[in-house]
Amino acid sequence: MGQKIKYFGQVGMLKANMVEEYVGLHADPWPDVVKMIQECNLTNYSIFLHGRMVFSYYEYTGDDYAADMKRMEEDPVTQQWWGHTHPCFEEYAFDQKSPYYHDMKQIFYVN
Amino acid sequence: MGQKIKYFGQVGMLKANMVEEYVGLHADPWPDVVKMIQECNLTNYSIFLHGRMVFSYYEYTGDDYAADMKRMEEDPVTQQWWGHTHPCFEEYAFDQKSPYYHDMKQIFYVN
Repeated sequence: MGQKIKYFGQVGMLKANMVEEYVGLHADPWPDVVKMIQECNLTNYSIFLHGRMVFSYYEYTGDDYAADMKRMEEDPVTQQWWGHTHPCFEEYAFDQKSPYYHDMKQIFYVN
Repeated sequence: MGQKIKYFGQVGMLKANMVEEYVGLHADPWPDVVKMIQECNLTNYSIFLHGRMVFSYYEYTGDDYAADMKRMEEDPVTQQWWGHTHPCFEEYAFDQKSPYYHDMKQIFYVN
């Protein structure tokens, strides 16, 4: 259990006037948010920017992604953090079910 | 030397009628292309797809990225492979200097 890494790639679109805010938040992320990411078994987490477009990449090393995501969603500090990050997004830019980041499909992997 | 990992995120846009071709090529990549990727110190290499948009992520573990990229560009088998993959792209979709994948800027990292 938990041995197989899962690879996540997600795309999002920021509001033009919120790019600087989003970059600033992530240049100095709250320690308790970072801690929750790690406790929820997300690792090697990067966000990349081009223009207004953001791409996030992370690896999941746990056994129950849904349960870990639920834990993160219920964390009060993470909710506060999202209160700052979510307004940066152009909502539903890539999918009508994904207001912020939208999961992409992994089509290639080389170790 | 070579201890510090560099993280690369790149975005590209495929032609609508070439998405299937691109996915098919990467579902079964040529072994010599994979070997060249590894010899050029690229690792943990994923490509993600959403619609026509592709995002690639990899880590560079070598000492001289420019030299390794030059080596890859000069590899005859890799050139043959690119002869199949490059026509899949909507050229210069994200930057007038990048015909295929365009480098994004890393703005966040959590280990």
